[in-house]
Amino acid sequence: MALFGWNREAERVKASTVGGVDLGGTKIAAAVVGPDDSILGSSRRPTPTKGGPAHVAIAVAETMREAAVAAGVGTADLGGVGVGFPGSVDRATGIASRAGNLPDWGGDFELGSFLEAEFGTKVRLGNDVQVGTMAEYRLGAGSGFDSVLGVFWGTGVGGGLILGGSPWLGRGRAGEIGHTLVRRGGARGPNGLRGTVEAYAGRKAMEVKARKEVAKGRKTILFDLMKEKEKASLTSSVWAKAWRKEDELARDLLNRAVVALSAGIGSAVNLLDPEVVVIGGGLGVRFADTLVPKVIEGTGKFLLEPENPPVMAVASLGDDGGVLGASLLVR
Amino acid sequence: MALFGWNREAERVKASTVGGVDLGGTKIAAAVVGPDDSILGSSRRPTPTKGGPAHVAIAVAETMREAAVAAGVGTADLGGVGVGFPGSVDRATGIASRAGNLPDWGGDFELGSFLEAEFGTKVRLGNDVQVGTMAEYRLGAGSGFDSVLGVFWGTGVGGGLILGGSPWLGRGRAGEIGHTLVRRGGARGPNGLRGTVEAYAGRKAMEVKARKEVAKGRKTILFDLMKEKEKASLTSSVWAKAWRKEDELARDLLNRAVVALSAGIGSAVNLLDPEVVVIGGGLGVRFADTLVPKVIEGTGKFLLEPENPPVMAVASLGDDGGVLGASLLVR
Repeated sequence: MALFGWNREAERVKASTVGGVDLGGTKIAAAVVGPDDSILGSSRRPTPTKGGPAHVAIAVAETMREAAVAAGVGTADLGGVGVGFPGSVDRATGIASRAGNLPDWGGDFELGSFLEAEFGTKVRLGNDVQVGTMAEYRLGAGSGFDSVLGVFWGTGVGGGLILGGSPWLGRGRAGEIGHTLVRRGGARGPNGLRGTVEAYAGRKAMEVKARKEVAKGRKTILFDLMKEKEKASLTSSVWAKAWRKEDELARDLLNRAVVALSAGIGSAVNLLDPEVVVIGGGLGVRFADTLVPKVIEGTGKFLLEPENPPVMAVASLGDDGGVLGASLLVR
Repeated sequence: MALFGWNREAERVKASTVGGVDLGGTKIAAAVVGPDDSILGSSRRPTPTKGGPAHVAIAVAETMREAAVAAGVGTADLGGVGVGFPGSVDRATGIASRAGNLPDWGGDFELGSFLEAEFGTKVRLGNDVQVGTMAEYRLGAGSGFDSVLGVFWGTGVGGGLILGGSPWLGRGRAGEIGHTLVRRGGARGPNGLRGTVEAYAGRKAMEVKARKEVAKGRKTILFDLMKEKEKASLTSSVWAKAWRKEDELARDLLNRAVVALSAGIGSAVNLLDPEVVVIGGGLGVRFADTLVPKVIEGTGKFLLEPENPPVMAVASLGDDGGVLGASLLVR
């Protein structure tokens, strides 16, 4: 009886040790997460910049396997693996599509079934931003609140919604605060929409703008830092270092991003009136003490009731929010 | 037994015959509504333009009493009276506050208890736009859908949300699509916020702009029509007549309003991804066949997925949506 009880407990613990993958436009992060939501092992690598969905999917599988090795388990021993994907997902079929920030991933790819075969355990997909918002709601800066607007400032600008304690997905694509308007007819974003939050504040759009300014003859250390750090693009850490070194172009573009974020968050708060706004993402985490307070202060200017703002907080799970949120998909 | 049964049935019918009041910035409409949601008697009068909350509350009471007379009942015979209020309401206390489009109603007024004493039956308050959205969801163009964005284009531009079959109120003030941004740093709206949907499309803001243009020497028949119709302001019917008569200033301002509405609705759809958008309000109803189709067409330009728009429809209850929605507050 004692042994039987022990086995059942071991089974329960095994089932509740799961994997989480955060598939981003710049990096893939994977972790093995214990039953108490602690990270038992992790791994990360850059997201392939070419090769299409299959190439990216193989990199996802390898990153997860490395995390499993670090945790001393096999992927088949995991109760499941959740994957946060930067595009649309069909939870029922495991098909992942329309990821503008991944190489050649405009169409559909059966990511779920591919990874289930690789891992030997069940795989569940979620939108990366919705997954990150759920992590902050359950384990981070949004815990204890009933309604959360999550804003993820990184390669793009994503948003996730928890309303009345449940994720609000709309017809599957809700939360796109990055594609709300700031300035009609303004800057063109990566997907062609003009004047959106992302067209000013997304890291991808900011890099395009920085390259244009350099082509016009403007000086910046941004691209020197990129080469120094052996990066293929202007990562969050490159922007953070350029900010610290008071690079004028970096400061101008980041300040422009701050105003766009404030305006977009203000509009969203007027529409949804949430209890808390949580700001995360690669840039959000790195600028938690410098620019995010400016975003929060700036939001007041766009509120219908500036005297009654929601709580506004930095994502408290930092870079781990993505993998922890993904792991919740298989709990 | 038969008599007893008849009495119980009479009680049931009486209880389910209720009153609904739509208190707007321009007019007060009241109706007695039967158990099958049919209007048994109605009345309307202009909203007082001065005198403060008490004066407006007396006008509300008189309008409701006239509707009761028209229906052949006394207000005390009604199962209750619901009131749609153009500002904030506290449902528990019956306090109505912050109605920017009512005269001197910036503070609190105990509208609920005042009207209960006047009517001799229970009174429940709701925000006018939320009430109108509920009416379209339960009885109109939004019926059969699970998520509705209601857009009410009138004195201001209000919005109401039904998400997952329930009203979404946030911390009490959700739905303010009129105060989402269209153009940062753009036109100043009645409440001081710049570049919002309402600053371009609200009838109040449009009238201010029209007066400025006239002061600059621009010609228009708008104010002649206003005098002809013996109105104190540019009502929806004045705007509609000026449009039909191809008044250039009216056309310019209405076309500007259409673009602002399209942009604001586009942003809101990107954020919330609802199944249906219902467009109503005084101007929405009067321009159902002319400008609302342009709003719907224009929204596509601001959508993240223009190939996958929500259903977009004109409010089907027309001017009755306000009183019918208010009556649902006491069902």
